[in-house]
Amino acid sequence: MNLDSAREVGADFAAVAALLQIGAEIGVDQVLDSGRTFGIADLAEATGLSQDSLRNYVHALSAAGLVAAEDGKDLYRASDDYADWRHEVGYLSWALTANSPFLQNARAFLTDSESAADTYRRDGRRVAVSSRWIGDRTFYPAVVERVVAADAKHVVDLGAGAAGLLIDLLLQDGRRSGVALDLSPAACDAAREAAGRAGVDDRLQVIERSVESLITDPGPLEGADVIQACFVMHDVLQNETVFEDVLRTCHKALAPGGVLAVVDAVSYGQEARERKFSALFTYLHSNFMGIKLPTADQWVEKFRSAGFSNVDCVSQIMPGGRLFVATK
Amino acid sequence: MNLDSAREVGADFAAVAALLQIGAEIGVDQVLDSGRTFGIADLAEATGLSQDSLRNYVHALSAAGLVAAEDGKDLYRASDDYADWRHEVGYLSWALTANSPFLQNARAFLTDSESAADTYRRDGRRVAVSSRWIGDRTFYPAVVERVVAADAKHVVDLGAGAAGLLIDLLLQDGRRSGVALDLSPAACDAAREAAGRAGVDDRLQVIERSVESLITDPGPLEGADVIQACFVMHDVLQNETVFEDVLRTCHKALAPGGVLAVVDAVSYGQEARERKFSALFTYLHSNFMGIKLPTADQWVEKFRSAGFSNVDCVSQIMPGGRLFVATK
Repeated sequence: MNLDSAREVGADFAAVAALLQIGAEIGVDQVLDSGRTFGIADLAEATGLSQDSLRNYVHALSAAGLVAAEDGKDLYRASDDYADWRHEVGYLSWALTANSPFLQNARAFLTDSESAADTYRRDGRRVAVSSRWIGDRTFYPAVVERVVAADAKHVVDLGAGAAGLLIDLLLQDGRRSGVALDLSPAACDAAREAAGRAGVDDRLQVIERSVESLITDPGPLEGADVIQACFVMHDVLQNETVFEDVLRTCHKALAPGGVLAVVDAVSYGQEARERKFSALFTYLHSNFMGIKLPTADQWVEKFRSAGFSNVDCVSQIMPGGRLFVATK
Repeated sequence: MNLDSAREVGADFAAVAALLQIGAEIGVDQVLDSGRTFGIADLAEATGLSQDSLRNYVHALSAAGLVAAEDGKDLYRASDDYADWRHEVGYLSWALTANSPFLQNARAFLTDSESAADTYRRDGRRVAVSSRWIGDRTFYPAVVERVVAADAKHVVDLGAGAAGLLIDLLLQDGRRSGVALDLSPAACDAAREAAGRAGVDDRLQVIERSVESLITDPGPLEGADVIQACFVMHDVLQNETVFEDVLRTCHKALAPGGVLAVVDAVSYGQEARERKFSALFTYLHSNFMGIKLPTADQWVEKFRSAGFSNVDCVSQIMPGGRLFVATK
């Protein structure tokens, strides 16, 4: 174990994770994430909470070194390493907060996982927050790089969530357009709002539909240079026939030379840097969510079978994750 | 920030914390903690869960490098670094799992903390588990060192919980005896069981009472060479007069040259190694539990006022924590 025990690294991670989770729960995360200077009144407006209670929270963030006070003005700004910390504690937020209904009812899941899964459900917003914190330094940049390399003008994101990645892509190139497809009405609402705030709503179409529905109506895929899908395909895959049909539909709809970029998890990744997180991810999916993950080779074989001419598998994306780049 | 981002340290911490939390929830932690070789059947006996479900869990632990399989025998043992990891993730277990009712209802606490505190309560067992994981490498050894240095024959532990620290002290010296005092019937039951397992029940008296009750009946303190109290005095302190009376009672009851050893938290500790965890600890106590923590100087002054001739304040115990050694 590579721990500097004098420093108690775990204590730092734990504290930052809890303090930022409180921020996400009370709704100050957008102000903090923006990196701009803010006053307590700004937080009160964003959250509807009292200035007294928010001042106490900001004092704690300041004592922890996560925000810096501007000289003598009662104004604050996220610290320079705030975004680095938010990324690192994304794993804690996912493992321990988003999954807390699983952990705290582990006995029920090990006794009868189907019945427990019906009773103890995760909060979709907490799952989305932690995924964003993890993704913004890991698979987001990896996907962006591929989209830019492909000089893609039209990008379709399957399971786009709040469309953070897609909006980044539209902001990078004013000629680029996109389609954000997601099953969740709340995610679609969040995507529309975020697109409006970013000023790209004229180039982003938000469609509330399942990935599976594309088999019978592939309309949303039309004209795509890149189709991307982050951590959604392992759900689709639980019905192998449906998954094959989805892949064939994507292959057919892509422009010539177009790319399907899938970020997803592999079963029990064994690189030293990933084996712990991948073990947790694989175990929870298999025993708490009823989702069996394929190995990297099994993923690649599925893309090949659907007709893609070339399939790359990129590791070093995130622990237990791979980016599959399948070219038409 | 001292992060090796290529390695994604946060992911390792998150994964280990979640996997060990599941172990504590399903009740395999005592087998794992013992360090002895075990089979799946041993876990089934300890937990009452099916061997299939336990085999899947052990497979995940093994993939994560937290248990090692003995060659070809279907027998397992905790890895050599298991205890180190358990200690480091104790902070995560406290911050994110034990405190999850606070974090997940943060809006309610920032709106009306008294009403929220009545509604959203922590699970005492989860608090105790995380405290033990943190304590066994930090304040436990620091207290043990003082007890040994004082050549204490009779030790009274206030707020002893499951009496882990006291039982260790009794195991170290067959002539030593102890009193474990705790308000919680469950903690007292656990202490009696643990003393029985350790074979020290003839030298350990367990008393179900509050610390405050010692003012009117100091009987349990009689003959103490060392009185120790870990993270219980900040509760007592919320009534300053009662706290002063408790300290005077301890002072009076101690043998000549006897020692009161108090491990507790200070308000917003500012050493670089502790500022993040101390910020969380102070903020949660103040705004979610209604407990104001003193500074180190304020703690020392209180021991002096109660008549102790010499008071040492030892840092480097744990982030945000101090060991106060007050000599009669």
